[in-house]
Amino acid sequence: MSKQIIYTVRVEFGDCDPARIVWFPNFFRWIDAASRHFFVGCGVPPWHETEKASGIIGTPLVDTHARFVKTASYGDTLNIHTSIAEWRDKSFVQRYSVMRDNLESDAGAPDLIMACDEVRIFAARREGSATAIRAVPIPPDIRALCE
Amino acid sequence: MSKQIIYTVRVEFGDCDPARIVWFPNFFRWIDAASRHFFVGCGVPPWHETEKASGIIGTPLVDTHARFVKTASYGDTLNIHTSIAEWRDKSFVQRYSVMRDNLESDAGAPDLIMACDEVRIFAARREGSATAIRAVPIPPDIRALCE
Amino acid sequence: MSKQIIYTVRVEFGDCDPARIVWFPNFFRWIDAASRHFFVGCGVPPWHETEKASGIIGTPLVDTHARFVKTASYGDTLNIHTSIAEWRDKSFVQRYSVMRDNLESDAGAPDLIMACDEVRIFAARREGSATAIRAVPIPPDIRALCE
Amino acid sequence: MSKQIIYTVRVEFGDCDPARIVWFPNFFRWIDAASRHFFVGCGVPPWHETEKASGIIGTPLVDTHARFVKTASYGDTLNIHTSIAEWRDKSFVQRYSVMRDNLESDAGAPDLIMACDEVRIFAARREGSATAIRAVPIPPDIRALCE
Repeated sequence: MSKQIIYTVRVEFGDCDPARIVWFPNFFRWIDAASRHFFVGCGVPPWHETEKASGIIGTPLVDTHARFVKTASYGDTLNIHTSIAEWRDKSFVQRYSVMRDNLESDAGAPDLIMACDEVRIFAARREGSATAIRAVPIPPDIRALCE
Repeated sequence: MSKQIIYTVRVEFGDCDPARIVWFPNFFRWIDAASRHFFVGCGVPPWHETEKASGIIGTPLVDTHARFVKTASYGDTLNIHTSIAEWRDKSFVQRYSVMRDNLESDAGAPDLIMACDEVRIFAARREGSATAIRAVPIPPDIRALCE
Repeated sequence: MSKQIIYTVRVEFGDCDPARIVWFPNFFRWIDAASRHFFVGCGVPPWHETEKASGIIGTPLVDTHARFVKTASYGDTLNIHTSIAEWRDKSFVQRYSVMRDNLESDAGAPDLIMACDEVRIFAARREGSATAIRAVPIPPDIRALCE
Repeated sequence: MSKQIIYTVRVEFGDCDPARIVWFPNFFRWIDAASRHFFVGCGVPPWHETEKASGIIGTPLVDTHARFVKTASYGDTLNIHTSIAEWRDKSFVQRYSVMRDNLESDAGAPDLIMACDEVRIFAARREGSATAIRAVPIPPDIRALCE
């Protein structure tokens, strides 16, 4: 297993849709931030620094699978628990549990709002292209920081 | 199988991130619009009308699984092909293929940028709550319009 | 003068555009959250509660004027200083200074990133319409909480 | 006066907030796209091409002033009429009128939803910095294309 880092989000009025619940693309906005904060929290430099040092420009998504369990709305505070569930040769599985403190329940157990497993790669630019990218092998120094 | 409806998106500068490619939560923004346009394209009224007629406020997500195949950037035009792959008792599988016209290739076959399968429900409000929702059975009239 | 409330924002990778600086519509996203947090910080209930009690559904914008002074990028932490500069009969001027701690300067004075003056109203729904709104006089109880 | 270019936007469910009207930061998202489409419509190359040719990375905002006249909601189609109201030495004023076709009125005159005047600059990167930018004089070839 990897380290686990928590990223905290306040749900705002503008994050909610006419049904008065979080408009779901916003969960992916927060999960993307949680993904980067996981690496920062593990001590990995920001991508604009790694781009200069090793060419790595970020960890784009290859595949994502999310389950929406309960709704959230504005005023809620969400804790996104982030870890890396699996390391592969050129990709890794990043796992997220979006939890809400449940002040009203007796047990006080937090509510699971959403769970998500992502496959991401470490990417560098393809030479001769402004936008094309390619996967690079998992950098051992970054992996060591995360474990 | 259901009808298939195409929703067209222009990728804008602000849809792209510092890696100069579409920031992935925007794909879900467009897919959510494509989901609604599918129903509109099939002749289903907008949700603020169905809410008055039958209490249905929309089709929130239960589960989504997306694969990101190629990157896209600003200047691209994307066609989102949307259909319903499966009807269940209280949910349905909505399927999306995000395609980009490939002007440069010999064959001219469009590029698959992203594919996504969603499980959605038809939702109504729970009585006595401003934000809680509940699944309702698939409305036969809406299903008939989509097939 | 009114109270002043500070709302803090972390700038994320996805908030930045291909020029690697904050894409400006995101400043308005944060300012809208700062507007609401100002009222919450002053003790005003959330709008879904005021809607039930007095019909007020929020404080929509009538007019906004913003100056962009310095750029910001991901990794920055921004403090949005919010106050009410003027109360009018049916509107008010809400004022924002978006500041970034400047760790590198000798003086350590924070950088002004953006300044914004907004005219907002207190709004209620128009009867018989799902979307039309109307301005209501400044609620004295809300004003008293803010001063 | 300059050319006038129209950029058309469909308002989507997710563009609207719990008050069921367009959440205002989305207007700036559309205006930013309209700004770029103005230049594209006048025959100016995309910014990733101008960056290579002349170092220009885009036209960041210096100042914006917007008036919100009527609300819009999902299902609406908006036409953003864009022109350049004034050329200065190192900046220009870009003007927007966001109009909605008014199918219900007798006269059929379109509704003005929002009006906006922006001051923008042509920007290039500052040497030695990944994010700092500087204003450059109005490129005469770009100005000629817009008039």
